Amino acid sequence: MKKSAVLLLSTPMPYACKGAVAAVSQFLIEHHGSILHSDDHLDSGRDLFLSRLEWDLDGFDIPISDFEQGFKPVAERFQINYHLALADVRPKCAILVSAYCHCLADLLYRHGTGELPCDIVMIIGNHEAAKPMADFHHVPFQLLTHPTDKRASEREMLDLLGPDLDLIVLARYMQILGPDFVAQYLLRMINIHHSFLPAFIGAKPYHQAFERGVKLIGATSHYVTAGLDEGPIIEQDVVRISHRDSVEDMVRKGRDLEKVVLSRAVRWHLENRVLVYQNKTVVFV
Amino acid sequence: MKKSAVLLLSTPMPYACKGAVAAVSQFLIEHHGSILHSDDHLDSGRDLFLSRLEWDLDGFDIPISDFEQGFKPVAERFQINYHLALADVRPKCAILVSAYCHCLADLLYRHGTGELPCDIVMIIGNHEAAKPMADFHHVPFQLLTHPTDKRASEREMLDLLGPDLDLIVLARYMQILGPDFVAQYLLRMINIHHSFLPAFIGAKPYHQAFERGVKLIGATSHYVTAGLDEGPIIEQDVVRISHRDSVEDMVRKGRDLEKVVLSRAVRWHLENRVLVYQNKTVVFV
Amino acid sequence: MKKSAVLLLSTPMPYACKGAVAAVSQFLIEHHGSILHSDDHLDSGRDLFLSRLEWDLDGFDIPISDFEQGFKPVAERFQINYHLALADVRPKCAILVSAYCHCLADLLYRHGTGELPCDIVMIIGNHEAAKPMADFHHVPFQLLTHPTDKRASEREMLDLLGPDLDLIVLARYMQILGPDFVAQYLLRMINIHHSFLPAFIGAKPYHQAFERGVKLIGATSHYVTAGLDEGPIIEQDVVRISHRDSVEDMVRKGRDLEKVVLSRAVRWHLENRVLVYQNKTVVFV
Amino acid sequence: MKKSAVLLLSTPMPYACKGAVAAVSQFLIEHHGSILHSDDHLDSGRDLFLSRLEWDLDGFDIPISDFEQGFKPVAERFQINYHLALADVRPKCAILVSAYCHCLADLLYRHGTGELPCDIVMIIGNHEAAKPMADFHHVPFQLLTHPTDKRASEREMLDLLGPDLDLIVLARYMQILGPDFVAQYLLRMINIHHSFLPAFIGAKPYHQAFERGVKLIGATSHYVTAGLDEGPIIEQDVVRISHRDSVEDMVRKGRDLEKVVLSRAVRWHLENRVLVYQNKTVVFV
Repeated sequence: MKKSAVLLLSTPMPYACKGAVAAVSQFLIEHHGSILHSDDHLDSGRDLFLSRLEWDLDGFDIPISDFEQGFKPVAERFQINYHLALADVRPKCAILVSAYCHCLADLLYRHGTGELPCDIVMIIGNHEAAKPMADFHHVPFQLLTHPTDKRASEREMLDLLGPDLDLIVLARYMQILGPDFVAQYLLRMINIHHSFLPAFIGAKPYHQAFERGVKLIGATSHYVTAGLDEGPIIEQDVVRISHRDSVEDMVRKGRDLEKVVLSRAVRWHLENRVLVYQNKTVVFV
Repeated sequence: MKKSAVLLLSTPMPYACKGAVAAVSQFLIEHHGSILHSDDHLDSGRDLFLSRLEWDLDGFDIPISDFEQGFKPVAERFQINYHLALADVRPKCAILVSAYCHCLADLLYRHGTGELPCDIVMIIGNHEAAKPMADFHHVPFQLLTHPTDKRASEREMLDLLGPDLDLIVLARYMQILGPDFVAQYLLRMINIHHSFLPAFIGAKPYHQAFERGVKLIGATSHYVTAGLDEGPIIEQDVVRISHRDSVEDMVRKGRDLEKVVLSRAVRWHLENRVLVYQNKTVVFV
Repeated sequence: MKKSAVLLLSTPMPYACKGAVAAVSQFLIEHHGSILHSDDHLDSGRDLFLSRLEWDLDGFDIPISDFEQGFKPVAERFQINYHLALADVRPKCAILVSAYCHCLADLLYRHGTGELPCDIVMIIGNHEAAKPMADFHHVPFQLLTHPTDKRASEREMLDLLGPDLDLIVLARYMQILGPDFVAQYLLRMINIHHSFLPAFIGAKPYHQAFERGVKLIGATSHYVTAGLDEGPIIEQDVVRISHRDSVEDMVRKGRDLEKVVLSRAVRWHLENRVLVYQNKTVVFV
Repeated sequence: MKKSAVLLLSTPMPYACKGAVAAVSQFLIEHHGSILHSDDHLDSGRDLFLSRLEWDLDGFDIPISDFEQGFKPVAERFQINYHLALADVRPKCAILVSAYCHCLADLLYRHGTGELPCDIVMIIGNHEAAKPMADFHHVPFQLLTHPTDKRASEREMLDLLGPDLDLIVLARYMQILGPDFVAQYLLRMINIHHSFLPAFIGAKPYHQAFERGVKLIGATSHYVTAGLDEGPIIEQDVVRISHRDSVEDMVRKGRDLEKVVLSRAVRWHLENRVLVYQNKTVVFV
């Protein structure tokens, strides 16, 4: 695992022009941080400058615990908002799942090959289907079933998961989560919806797509917010269908889409490549 | 130009199983029609069998004007609905256009290379932009501008176009047509909408897509019906965008999509490959 | 599992025109076989007519063991070559694998969901990596390692597999198989090559692609023949890369391609949708 | 037209780590140049750092003619190789064409809409087909036909084009150019090849693709070098085909590919987004 740090930052436009990014680079270099990668984006409509900087911690002479203090003068001078992440601290993730396990199986396999740099600490299912797979991958599985009192069930989940998780992945989890739960993990919870949003919001999107007679079906991964299927979109993709495809064929083709679209979004989040503002994402890839 | 005929037909399921298609083939072969291509589709949900048969007219011993009479016994026995088209009769088309001419330019160029087997008899614009291009391709251009009385303007168009056109292409024509006009050319009028329908219906879809933060933009060609952007979809396609793409970039990328999506739909219609039912299309390609 | 039969057939052109397909349909209908799906293709360059017919065995009045005898007059009259398959007889498959298990994991998961209508009777690996996964899915695993005498090793495999397998899948099996082994399973062995063939034949195609600076990478599934990577192609797909992608990124992106491309080819083969001639495939989908 | 400047630069890795890019940014900011966009790439295999910086010339206090002198100390200190381009100086382009005019028509139409920021100063054809289109767009057309002495013909072209052109586009120009001509316009000449290189180099790639039975066909735009179809690739794309597609269908589908792939490459070159090294391109988009 490489020992690097990532800074995701935004700064209002006049400051950006006057050298905010150069000042940040200068700060890192003065402290012997080799810049491995930098990428930026100017949103000219909103006069906002966004940037992602990754640098090698080998030789960097500020202990990371002191970074905030050392960086403060630069941040204040240029009104920089920032998020710091260390590539050698593995984020902690949980996965929520229902009866369909293809996304779960895919995430667990990718995790095993090293594609997803995180620790998967728990799988919670409202159905027993996922248990054998969780066991095979040695991840604790918790069954939370028959939620007659949905809110009580969510409080139980909150207790199980704790407040400090870096990411919760809804891997075809078929329950709509309440506003309290969502608020607790804002921008730390990624869902996969099996349509090309904003088309076919809500239940049974493949059936909706079949009825409308579209020629492509899609999948969308997004951060979960209070509005159903309305959160910031991280990734989307589509696959071609024809009149020969029944709803069952669409479900089958859709599984392949859902897996790749969700796993890309999860990986980008874990690699600190996603910056959210105005209900949209900038993905630095 | 090949001298062939196309039969697009549908038959209820019990008849299909009992040999409707075999009987049609047998009928054609008995009359010395060589079958060049056949394709079919069983919609098991609606118990409907759909088929497209193309055969060589060289040697076919029924004059095409007598086809209906000769074919009647077969059609009645199996309750076959059908549409007969002759590949050597060039359909007559008109194109409606506004200020953006990229789809028009594309259609005219393709027509010149022989991709679109039809005669383009007229271009009507509510803007002068298209005139030089119409002149270059020797197609009559008619300006119908400043429609203070929209319905009167449509009646004028009806007079110009006549009732017998095989196809009207709305090549980014930016006026919503009234129900009378639409009814006149039902399933003979193809529009291009610059979004992946049913997402972003109506005006300024690229602006809507930008605001929502989608990661792909699309284009949809469909038959025009009374409901805005709700007609049977013939073809769709998408292209990837990112946060770097402004609305202007999306407009530019979208032009390439609109051109290919519209021209595919037009070609398939002209080649008698499209069969419509239940507000959906079967495209035999 | 549906109880249907599939006929894949080819007939020289003059016979096709004179009603070969209609005669076959007629034969099936006379024996109370409901045709569920038919598709055909005329290769006009080679004057060959190819067809796939699927019909419901429910009510079909010829015992399938007597089909050949009953069908003989039709086949002879029209010089029809054909292959008959029953959808309710599950084909027997084996999978060969080396150290990379992503394709194997994908095939086993799909098999579990019912996507691949077959029995997987054995997994043979020249590496132990696949064993836990084979155990989890309750498929016998056989290790055949350290092949100092490659041909002896292949004879041992032949003994293990037997002559009657319907399909052998090379799921990133990294040994080149000898001509005797290949001849034994001609058109019954499917490989996945991690490039867009015919580009980058042979070893380390992702490294070759990186060196050449291509902007898309691909994967190809094909029947194995004597010539390396030269067999009939069943399916291909590509994914976009950029200068940011290292060879490792290409390997990661490629895994997703390899999985879907191989599994599509395997499914089409199992569903009797693939017809081979002149080192090319016709895939009736 | 925006008044901005672009710097494409490369610097060896130890210098990059030690702040080369920050120093360049600092230099621009000190001279009141607002940075509009920056993008970079570290090729860790070759220890080379590549960057593209675009800044607003409005307020920039160094006359662009003095830029080299002012920038010299920075460039020398960090061993920076660079290319400077001004977005308000329109590059001069010529187009070479043969009998197929779809790419030419496409480029001319895009130029008319403002997609391609350049002046098209001349079209040279070895066939008369392009003349009417050149006339329509008011671009001088020069016929150079019947080249019995190919080298003499190229010398004549050199005289017509002059040494200072910024770009020559081979828009399906069907003559192989000699080494002297190629050397004259190295990295200033873009070709479109109608295959997915390195597959199907040389003549009749669609026929080669048809014979091999591939499932996708492609197009590749690349800088022209001495080796046939071996220059640095700028852009590629593919489209799906099936057994139903004849060579003629592939030619038709390929035209759409060729147009978009060539025009993207041309636009990126004109916008100074392409950096070449080691026979590969970095495209900053």
